[in-house]
Amino acid sequence: MNKGILTVVSGFSGAGKGTLMKRLIEKYDNYALSISATTRQSRPREMHGKDYFFQSIEEFEQMIAEDQLIEHANYVGNYYGTPRAYVEEQLNTGKDVILEIELQGALKVKEKIPDTLLLFVTPPNAKNLMKRLTDRGTEGTAAIKARMKRAGEEAVYMDRYDYLVINDDLETCVEQIHQIIQDEHFKVFRNINFIEKIKDELKAF
Amino acid sequence: MNKGILTVVSGFSGAGKGTLMKRLIEKYDNYALSISATTRQSRPREMHGKDYFFQSIEEFEQMIAEDQLIEHANYVGNYYGTPRAYVEEQLNTGKDVILEIELQGALKVKEKIPDTLLLFVTPPNAKNLMKRLTDRGTEGTAAIKARMKRAGEEAVYMDRYDYLVINDDLETCVEQIHQIIQDEHFKVFRNINFIEKIKDELKAF
Repeated sequence: MNKGILTVVSGFSGAGKGTLMKRLIEKYDNYALSISATTRQSRPREMHGKDYFFQSIEEFEQMIAEDQLIEHANYVGNYYGTPRAYVEEQLNTGKDVILEIELQGALKVKEKIPDTLLLFVTPPNAKNLMKRLTDRGTEGTAAIKARMKRAGEEAVYMDRYDYLVINDDLETCVEQIHQIIQDEHFKVFRNINFIEKIKDELKAF
Repeated sequence: MNKGILTVVSGFSGAGKGTLMKRLIEKYDNYALSISATTRQSRPREMHGKDYFFQSIEEFEQMIAEDQLIEHANYVGNYYGTPRAYVEEQLNTGKDVILEIELQGALKVKEKIPDTLLLFVTPPNAKNLMKRLTDRGTEGTAAIKARMKRAGEEAVYMDRYDYLVINDDLETCVEQIHQIIQDEHFKVFRNINFIEKIKDELKAF
């Protein structure tokens, strides 16, 4: 069995990444979502080992020291990171692992694990992003404006990704993401074993 | 409209490339097969501008001199080559152009046009290739043995390709080729216009 593909999905806040990933996992059983480690308090209904690996600051800092995290960051006083062990474990059983993380983390992962596939999810245009953020109805004008500004800053790094996926229609977009990841299995550098095998067989003639 | 994708399809003799391409073109209308120029005599029922562009040696050598061919080679005294104009014309109308050429030519095309997608079609194993060649019933044991030996020599260059497609079942293989080429449209470097546009839009916020 071939190893799974590690895919990092990033995109502007409000681009619909969460919904896309939920639908992708629901629809196909070859995917595993990476579970982040965090030092923040768990919220009601959040489960250790499902939503997050909840850890103490000491535990988390030990993981950093022992290079057990593919990437990590600190937001408003709490650590968040991607435990390498869980990702490796899933990849080795042939699962395609999805990491939904922001830009800085994504580029760090690509640096550490160069065969990572980087997907960037974007709405069809800025107006559509604005509408999505407004329709959520959870934030005021100032917060939305700040998110739009942040999107503009992040857009500068879009060309560091491998593929661009435009989230116009949910189902179409889920299919595109699925196809891109599945096609990745046919990349020559992921099929070195097959190539070596057929080379050996052909030598016999 | 985005430009089409230029795809070079190569593979061992007997891997079924011809049948695959025929089926692909039959099934989807976004493809154009590149038409080769040649100095060899036309055969009955071959049409100029459909099967080949038939040319005199003088015409062909002038095309070489004027860099009008993406690649060319000489087999048993006849020139064969890929006219750049026809390929560019099709790509500019948004067609995905397929070039079915052998390894040496494929690598030359990639050198001249770096965003070319290189696909290598292979049977699932050497035994299957042998069976395919035998089942065609057109060649004797010695000729088949020579093709198998040649396949062994070509296999060394498989890792220069982008994707490996295993031709086990025709329809499955056609779908894989189609998906790989269509996904290529989502590559970030092929969507620079979109990226620049959304960057500009976001600046307005």
